[in-house]
This record gives sequence, structure tokens and C-alpha cells, in this order.
Amino acid sequence: MTKQTMRFMSDNTATACPEMLAALAEANHGLEVAYGDDPWTRRLDEALGTFFGAPVRAFAVATGTAANSLALATLTPPYGAIFAHREAHIACDECGAPGFYSGGAQLMLLEGKHAKVSAAGLAAALEAHPVSVHTVQPAALSVSQASELGAAYRPEELAQLCKVAHSHGLKVHMDGARFANAVTFLGCHPGDVTWRAGIDVLSFGATKNGALAAEAVVFFDTTLVRDFELRRKRAGHLLSKSRFVAAQLLAYLQDDLWRRNAARANGFARRIGAAAGARLIAPVEANEVFVQLGIEGKRTLRAAGFEFYDWGAERAGQARLVAAWDQNESHVEALCAALGRLAED
Amino acid sequence: MTKQTMRFMSDNTATACPEMLAALAEANHGLEVAYGDDPWTRRLDEALGTFFGAPVRAFAVATGTAANSLALATLTPPYGAIFAHREAHIACDECGAPGFYSGGAQLMLLEGKHAKVSAAGLAAALEAHPVSVHTVQPAALSVSQASELGAAYRPEELAQLCKVAHSHGLKVHMDGARFANAVTFLGCHPGDVTWRAGIDVLSFGATKNGALAAEAVVFFDTTLVRDFELRRKRAGHLLSKSRFVAAQLLAYLQDDLWRRNAARANGFARRIGAAAGARLIAPVEANEVFVQLGIEGKRTLRAAGFEFYDWGAERAGQARLVAAWDQNESHVEALCAALGRLAED
Amino acid sequence: MTKQTMRFMSDNTATACPEMLAALAEANHGLEVAYGDDPWTRRLDEALGTFFGAPVRAFAVATGTAANSLALATLTPPYGAIFAHREAHIACDECGAPGFYSGGAQLMLLEGKHAKVSAAGLAAALEAHPVSVHTVQPAALSVSQASELGAAYRPEELAQLCKVAHSHGLKVHMDGARFANAVTFLGCHPGDVTWRAGIDVLSFGATKNGALAAEAVVFFDTTLVRDFELRRKRAGHLLSKSRFVAAQLLAYLQDDLWRRNAARANGFARRIGAAAGARLIAPVEANEVFVQLGIEGKRTLRAAGFEFYDWGAERAGQARLVAAWDQNESHVEALCAALGRLAED
Amino acid sequence: MTKQTMRFMSDNTATACPEMLAALAEANHGLEVAYGDDPWTRRLDEALGTFFGAPVRAFAVATGTAANSLALATLTPPYGAIFAHREAHIACDECGAPGFYSGGAQLMLLEGKHAKVSAAGLAAALEAHPVSVHTVQPAALSVSQASELGAAYRPEELAQLCKVAHSHGLKVHMDGARFANAVTFLGCHPGDVTWRAGIDVLSFGATKNGALAAEAVVFFDTTLVRDFELRRKRAGHLLSKSRFVAAQLLAYLQDDLWRRNAARANGFARRIGAAAGARLIAPVEANEVFVQLGIEGKRTLRAAGFEFYDWGAERAGQARLVAAWDQNESHVEALCAALGRLAED
Repeated sequence: MTKQTMRFMSDNTATACPEMLAALAEANHGLEVAYGDDPWTRRLDEALGTFFGAPVRAFAVATGTAANSLALATLTPPYGAIFAHREAHIACDECGAPGFYSGGAQLMLLEGKHAKVSAAGLAAALEAHPVSVHTVQPAALSVSQASELGAAYRPEELAQLCKVAHSHGLKVHMDGARFANAVTFLGCHPGDVTWRAGIDVLSFGATKNGALAAEAVVFFDTTLVRDFELRRKRAGHLLSKSRFVAAQLLAYLQDDLWRRNAARANGFARRIGAAAGARLIAPVEANEVFVQLGIEGKRTLRAAGFEFYDWGAERAGQARLVAAWDQNESHVEALCAALGRLAED
Repeated sequence: MTKQTMRFMSDNTATACPEMLAALAEANHGLEVAYGDDPWTRRLDEALGTFFGAPVRAFAVATGTAANSLALATLTPPYGAIFAHREAHIACDECGAPGFYSGGAQLMLLEGKHAKVSAAGLAAALEAHPVSVHTVQPAALSVSQASELGAAYRPEELAQLCKVAHSHGLKVHMDGARFANAVTFLGCHPGDVTWRAGIDVLSFGATKNGALAAEAVVFFDTTLVRDFELRRKRAGHLLSKSRFVAAQLLAYLQDDLWRRNAARANGFARRIGAAAGARLIAPVEANEVFVQLGIEGKRTLRAAGFEFYDWGAERAGQARLVAAWDQNESHVEALCAALGRLAED
Repeated sequence: MTKQTMRFMSDNTATACPEMLAALAEANHGLEVAYGDDPWTRRLDEALGTFFGAPVRAFAVATGTAANSLALATLTPPYGAIFAHREAHIACDECGAPGFYSGGAQLMLLEGKHAKVSAAGLAAALEAHPVSVHTVQPAALSVSQASELGAAYRPEELAQLCKVAHSHGLKVHMDGARFANAVTFLGCHPGDVTWRAGIDVLSFGATKNGALAAEAVVFFDTTLVRDFELRRKRAGHLLSKSRFVAAQLLAYLQDDLWRRNAARANGFARRIGAAAGARLIAPVEANEVFVQLGIEGKRTLRAAGFEFYDWGAERAGQARLVAAWDQNESHVEALCAALGRLAED
Repeated sequence: MTKQTMRFMSDNTATACPEMLAALAEANHGLEVAYGDDPWTRRLDEALGTFFGAPVRAFAVATGTAANSLALATLTPPYGAIFAHREAHIACDECGAPGFYSGGAQLMLLEGKHAKVSAAGLAAALEAHPVSVHTVQPAALSVSQASELGAAYRPEELAQLCKVAHSHGLKVHMDGARFANAVTFLGCHPGDVTWRAGIDVLSFGATKNGALAAEAVVFFDTTLVRDFELRRKRAGHLLSKSRFVAAQLLAYLQDDLWRRNAARANGFARRIGAAAGARLIAPVEANEVFVQLGIEGKRTLRAAGFEFYDWGAERAGQARLVAAWDQNESHVEALCAALGRLAED
């Protein structure tokens, strides 16, 4: 009998969910004006405005890196400084995209528990950063919801962060690659962790949570959108057949699809986290589980058919286990059992 | 009775063709490694190598602007000069993308009949461009197949152009947004107008010819691909669920789908061109028809329900009529009839 | 007897004039606050304000390329279009500096007699340039005073140009590498060809006219200066010992030194132009003389010890003869005589 | 009696030394070919080659920021990572210049005692930095000699650093804004802390040590110089009257002028350091003294007429005292006395 492969590598390994594929097929008739002047794309602002409970301007793109770096380039001049957590996706996993898009803005990397930036940490960093013609100019804060360690910022944490940021003239960007997972965990209104807290621009991810390839850049502060639109076109991120990406996003918002998918993934992660017990190195507040397995523990799990990424250096013995929206439940059960066995060793 | 809208604005207004949607659905099962290490993406090099009759390295992206500017950024240093026709898409319709991606390379725009660059024109431009530390350094030639005026370069034209370019140290890029249309018109082998003629890198378009959003950057000169891969990631053009774009491209190559779609669109254009007669301002060698209608003529057509773009200034009286792969045949017939009536006026 | 070399290559081959060297020595005592907060630099705004008859903000840099491209980067976004003459220094002789500094703005090159842009030519180009998300956004016009062919814009020409530019939302930059020569020729007030005509920012050159290395970027529209200051620092063009470059500029303005140097160079050029007679290909309105000598004529002059640059391709037979502020008068006489002899052939 | 101002703010507040001014005056005769093809500039490679005891290619620029960032842009691709100390000048005091010049390369900032990077620290950082298409690619290490805290790297420290760097494919850049001070302190040969240790490119500073404005970028690895030359021109850092900056550099090397100036400044710093005693927060190995004075102590010194910069946040109570080559000896004595009095409090 062939050993079965059970993937917990990334929610990017997931399929596209049927509802979004159906929406795509449904949009596929007739000649529609290209580059966004179609009924689907034109509905985005309203649909996302309803979702967030506030007027927004929203723009579809195909990847999270595009969403993040286009948003940041709109918020910061080339000589700007972007504050973010040392482990942020924009700092570690986008091959320097913010530097490229902004024309060389500098990342100012902060420490913080569970990969979250704290208001106190930001305030201290800003105080320690002199502002003169010799230094990069503080321009933006970028936070990840959920964080790179799967933790969710509470509304009040964000409000405090935004207050510090705004009082120093910074705009605030949120990388919401797993926004649905965080909001579902928090049980709050989407507006509570965005505009009500002071977020200016959000990268609203859908790809990891069921889309083929669909992200929206959502502006709560709408003064900068023309600059954004030109940067998007110039970067090759304005899709000609825009209706297809817009249709995915509309379906995602429809009937709480985003929440159903996220809830399923989160539920799996919670079960895995419970099985991991004392091995957890961060709270499970989205669909990712970070565990200390030891080199031996990782070897054992892999030998049993589980696929996952090391977290940090291989020899540090830490691992990231991600539950996708379409994860096979029996694989989750098998993983929980395997983690339970490890605990007994 | 409501007047019917008949769109001849752009092949970007088209739908996605059923074969490519089916391929997408077929790829939609199981957890697959993200960012290109999946079976569909891994098959691209071989499939396109077979198509071109030569070993290639191919990379999927979602838009033509991304394909063009990433390719050009790989070919030219920031202080480089990119030679292209004055009406090229990269010069007029990409919001300065080549400048952004290359870090400021300069376009050197050439004249040329039917929006095609000639070997003599290129040679003259190179001769007139001094090379010193004070000047931008000639680095790349970019040609569009078909051209912005719907004309197709013959294999020998391209061979001569590439010879001039290579002898001056330039690499040659082809913008193949309508590559299938040109090759179908020419009736030649895809290799004849690419690597056999000396093309180094091709933007191989599929979106205008039936895909949702799928283009491939095809390297015949494979020495530069690592640089390309990093630039692509950094630009946010590496798709996480890469299988979906790769699946579209594989379907596009399967059973000559590319040719069937192109042949249908080309056939419609040929009919429209025939109806336009003496009004044609360029030969119809792909799926676009450029006509001198006069301000009055354009008004008449639009009043009859036809939608299309002005070509150049509105008052110049020229128009571009594009036939998409899924164009409604009765609309084509109506357009031909209307053009015939114009002729009689 | 050794044949004497008589250089008419460039005013960049000139020495620094004694008054400016003396000013430099005079500034050389005591410890002064660096990076511009010294008495010399602080006096620049006032001195140049008096010179122009209007409030200005002025910033010293060491080269004309720096002045031009920093000014343009302040005026244009990365997705902007910069209109300039096809032969402008920024287009031909700065190795793509405007593209580098702006983050990829695109040059839109215009034709125009004697290397001058005309209001009609600019208006036509703007009308032919559609503005949409697909196109680079018209942002700046750059004119050279004197032009690359040594011609001077009249105040009313500039006023008309600026009117067209401003009415389309463009800012206007003047490359004044030979500003003193042009103003001296025109006999007008420096304000007449700058702010009174509508110029927003001027690269005010002194190096070619007697400085060691000193140029000023002069803002008549002072809203953008903070952006400029940060770009200058970031580009390495904020000099630590700023007093030395400021001292040169102050001396240059003192007692009409700028005019005396320019008048001397212009006078020589006028004499050379008179000797060239019908060979002139542009009017002599500064310190440069452009002549049609033929290949043979150029050979004859070079054989006689004269050094100068070809203008355009070598075989076209044209030459540029530049008179520097410190040109040896006997060399000028010898050149006039030689040109006279050519005429007789 | 007016209280005297005694400046210990920066060596950038210093005058230009007489020998270098004399060299400048001496170079000021005759028309010389511009942009570096003059006898002074042509002698630079040989003069610096003799100085370092190895063949070099050297290029003059006017500022240290230009030297550093042009060198780094030549060593790193846009998607590269530049490793440097967290307090490095390139990270803190150049307004993001490396990001601008490189097209967005990312700084990877390291800790290290006395603002020096250690081989172990670099090795750990490289090991912790995964190299994949998602991450910036390690490209360069930049070290400062002397460091931002006035400490000098020993030859063997540099050799170890370069060994780690080179074994990971990084090139090594040295910011030598105070190179002369460090070498004079170390008493070693200039080659010992550059090419013999493995340095690939050096920013060789002269401005802080007596020049008006003169720095040289010195390539020990000469393969990249053409790229550098084009980047320099394009950045506006190729001086037209190149002889004047070259003449300064030649004078600086002549008769050990560099060492005499540095020795004087270093000697003053040593005396100040001795007076500071236990207040020192870093060893005095160049011409800078870093001291813990307390808020009160700083106030006392300032009240006595001493000018200097806070080091870090004002309230941290630390200060930087810099001795320039032309520092007034009586001011140094006064400062030492004042520091002595502080100690007694």
C-alpha cells in the first residue's frame, strides 16, 4: 500500500472553491468592456462597502504581493520608512517587493510577541528614529492580520497602533492575506479591525481562502486612489478581463462564503492546536499552527506522510502546520493522532 | 425594440473559451504545491518547447504588460535603451511599465510602416545613437507580432531585424499579445517567427485569444531566467495557485486550440477588411481592422449600435475594429453591411 | 615648432575664474555647521531672489545632470511624462538620468527649430497624447535656455509655452546650463525668461561659465522643496561642506560676474559665427556656434590644431564650436581666419 | 565678553586644508578635456594603486553618500540584500540612498559591538536567511572603517568577515569615510585593511579629513567598473571639471598629507578620550569620542560653549565629540578640562 501524502504546507496549495468557480463561469458570457469597466468590477466598491460598513474604493489584483506593495507604494514616498514586524511577509517573503514598488523605501523592522507589532514598540521605534533630511521619513505602518505566527490583532490593539501611527503622520496598511480567518476567529465585524480602528488601506485576501487568484486592495482613505490606479496599470496588475477576478470576489462576499471557508480551516487548526498542546509556540487564532516538534519529531511526522514547512532554521525544530479551507478531515484527524503520539514519547 | 450593442472594441472584451475553463476545472482537485512546483506548471517548458520546436524556459504571468516589462527588465540594465516602434504597446499603452520595471531604461522610438520596425530603420537609429558614458546604452529591441496596426512581420523581416540588433549587442524581445493571430495568418511554424529568426524572449499571449488571464514569457535564450524569476516574484507576478494559469496555457496549446480561436477571429477581420475596401489604412494580417471612416462615418456606425475605439485623435476620423475569437457572426455581417453602405455614400 | 592645440570642444574644458576661487578661499576659515546650515548657504535664497526679482528657494548641487534630474523628479511622478526637445541634454547626454531619478518617467520628445520647443508643437503633442490609466500622465515640460543648438528662447516664446503647459497641468522646468549666456544675449532681466514667463523650476548653471562645480536648483514654485531636499540628500547631492559651493554661487552673482564671463564667451562666439557666415546652421545666441563644414572642412580645421566635436554623425559634416569664458582670444582669431579661408575654398 | 563657541560636532565642519586648495589652484590653467579625460584624473588609478600596493580602478565623486550607494548599486541587483551594521551610515544617515541607487535592494541589519559587524554575526545572519525565489538574495556586505562608533576593524577581523561573505557569494564594500583615521590608528598598510583582507570596493573618503569635496570609489575587483561608470554619470556624479576633484585627491596622497591630517585629529580625540575616562562608551580608535555624559553633563558642557551632537535619544545622555583635522588645540584643552571637571562632580 502506498503511503498517503497529507499536505499541511500552505493554504496556497488548496483548490478553488466551487462557488467561486461557478461565479466565474457565470460571468463568462458576452463581450464586456475590458480593464474594469464591466458590471462585476463596478459592483466591487459597493459590495465591499457593505461588507465593511463604510464607503470604500476597492481594486482587484491577482496576488497578495501585488496588493501589499502597490498599497505601500501609494502610502510612502521613495524616501519613506515603512514600519513592520521583523517577520512580516513584506519583509521576508516578497523578494523585496516594497522596495521595488516604492522606489527604494526602507523597511524599519520591529520585534513583537507572536509576530505582532505593539503600540509601545512602534512608539519607541518612532521616538528613536530622528527625522531630518539625512534619514528616511516615517511614512507607513504595515500590520498583518492574522500575523505571520497566526495570531489575530484585537480591535483595541489596532486602534492603539493606528493612534500612534497617525499621530506621527504615518498611514496604516493591513496585510490581510488571512483576514477572513482572523475576523472569523475574533467574531467581530470586519469594520472593527479595519476602518473603525484606523486602518487606511487593506490588502483583502481571498486566494488562500478559496479563490483561484483574487485579492482586493481596499482604500478606506480614498484620497490616494488615482495614484494607486496608475501604479497598478504600470505594474501590469490591471487585468484586462477584470470581470473574472471581480466575480470571484463578489462570490466570496456572497452568503458569507468567506466566513464558511475560514471557519472550516480555523476549526481544523484549532483541533491540531489542541492536539499539539504544550508544543504550541503561538496561540491558534487563524488557520495556522506553529509547533515545537524537535528535529526528531519533525522526522517522525514526515515519515508518516505529513508534509509541512520548517519554521525558521531546520535544526531549530519548529514547524508550521497550515489547514486549508478544503483540507481533508481525515488528514486532520491523522495529524492530531500523530501529534498525540509524539506527546506520549 | 432596444438597439443592440455590437462590440468591436477589443479582443479583451471576449469571454474565456470553454476548453480553457474546462482545463481549469480539471486542475481543481487536491492540494498542490504552490508557486509553480505543481504538475501543470512543470509541464509548461516541455509543452511550449514542443510548440516552438526548440528548448525553452517558460513562465506564466497574468497580463501582457507584466510579460513585456518583466522580459524587458531582464534584457536591459537601468541605463539601457530599448528600441521599439513609436506606436508600440510598451510605449503607448502600459503607463510607462518598461521604465518602472527596468529602473528607468529609455525608450528609443522608431518610425516604420504599419507600425513595424524595419531593419534599415533600426540600423540608422543605432548608427545615429552615439555610445559613450553620457548616453543610454543600446540594450534591447522590442517588436510586436502582430504590430499595433495589425500587420504581421514575415520570418525574413524578423531575421534581418534580429541580425542588425544582435550585431549591435541588443537582445530582441517580441510582444506576442496577438502572436497566434499573426502565425495563423502567416501559416508558418511558430519557430519561424521566433527563435529561428533570432528572437530571444517572447511574450506569448493567450488572454486576447480565449484565456481568462494567461500569458507566458518564453525564453529562447535561457541564460537570464534566474534574474527573471526573481523579478517576477518581486513584482507580485508569481501566482501562488500557479496550476490554474498553467492549465489554461496547456489547454491553449492542446489540439491547436490557439489556432482555431485565432482563425475564427482572423476570418471575421478579413471579412470586415474586405467590406472596408479602400478605407483600410493597414493590411489585415491578424484580427484587427484599421479604417479611415471620417468623423461622419464613425458617427453613423455608432448610431447603428457598433462600438469601437477611435484610432488616434477623434477628429482624424480613423477607427480600430477588433474581432474577438468569440465574436457574434451576425454582428460581423451587420458591420460588413454597414461598411458597405458607408462606401456607397 | 610644435603645433598648438586650440580647444573649442566645450565650456566644460574651461578653468575656474579667479573671483570664484577667491570666494572659495575666503570661505575657508573656521568650523562651520555642515550640510547647508552655514552663512554662505543660508544667503543663497536671498541672493538669488534679488537676482531674479522674486522670492525663491535655491539649492546648490555640483552638476547640471543632478540639477536637472532632481528638479524633474520633484515635478513628475514615476508614471509621468516629461516633454522635451528631441535633442535636449536630458534626452541625449545624461545617460537616462531623468528615468533614474523619477523612477521611470517617460520622455516625450518633440521636434522644433534650433532645438527649441514651440508652443504649437507642445499643444499638438499634448492633444495627441490620450490621458487614461493606460498612458503616462503629462507632468512636466523641460526647456533648455540656451537650447542645444545655442538658440535663446525669447520671453514671449516662453510665456506661450508655459501657458500651454500649465493649462494642461504640467509644471515647467528650465535647463539653464547656459542661462547666463542666453540672458546676456537677450539683454533682458533674468526674471523675464523665468518666473515672469511661468517657469516653475530652473537649473541655474555656473560651472560652464566660470565655477569649479556649482549649479543651483531654483524653485519659483516653492511648494515642492521638501520633496526636493530629501531627494537631493538621498542621491548624494547634498554637499557636507556646503559653504564652498554656495560661496562660488554668491561670487558668481556678485558685481555681475556671471554677465561679464558670459559676455566674453558670447562675444567670441559671435565673431566665430560671423566668420562662419553661410555655414551656420543655427543663429548664434549664446556661446556656441554650429556649422556645416563638410568632412573635408573639419579635417582641415583639425589639421590646423583646432579641437571640437562633431555635431551628429561624423559623416554629416557638422561641427559644434564652443567658446569658453576664458578662451584665448588669439585662438579665436585664428579660428575666424581659418573659417574665412575655408569659405574661400 | 562673548562666550566662545567651540565646535566638536563633526569633521564635516572643518575647512579645506591648504595643500589641497593649492593643488586646486595649480590645476586651474588651460582648457582641459572634460569629464575625466584630463591629466589629473588619469593619474588617479596609478596614485591610488601605489597607495594601496595593488592595481585599482578609481573614480572621483563629491560625496560619501554618492560613493557608498554607487558602489553598492554596482554590487547588488535590485532584488539583493545588503548586510550591514544596524548603526551604519548607509542605514541611518543617507536618507535611503542604497535603496534608491540599487532599485530597491533591502538592508539586512546586524548587531555588533562598537558598531562593528562580526564574522560570527554575519555567518549567523546568512544561515538564518533562506535563499529562494521568495527572499531577497544576499549580495553584499558593507562595513565602515572606522565604524560609526569610532572603532577600527583589525586586518584579521576584516579577513574573517570577507571570508564568510565571499563563501556565500557576497561582495564586500567598505565605507571609508574615516579610512585615513582608522589606518593611522592601526599603523598598518592601507592594503592590509582592504584588498589583502578581501575588500572588493572601497569608498575612500577625503572630505572629512581636509578636502573641499572629494571622495574616491576604489575598485580592487575591477570587473564591474563599466557598470559603475554608467551609474555614476546617470546619477549626476560625473563632474565635468573633473580635474579639480582629482587634484584634491592627488594632493591628499602626496607626502602623506592624509596621514598628517588624520594623526592630528586622532591625537586630539585620544586626549579627549583620556579626559573622558570611564565615561567612554567605545574605544577611541579614530577621531571620534563617544561618551556617557548624562543629561546634566551635556547641559553643563553646552553652557560652557561646547557644541556637539547627542548620540541616540537626547534623554539617553550620550554624546559624540568629533575632532577635526583643523581643530583648535586650545578648544581641545578646554574640552578636556571641562570633562575632567565633570568627572569630579
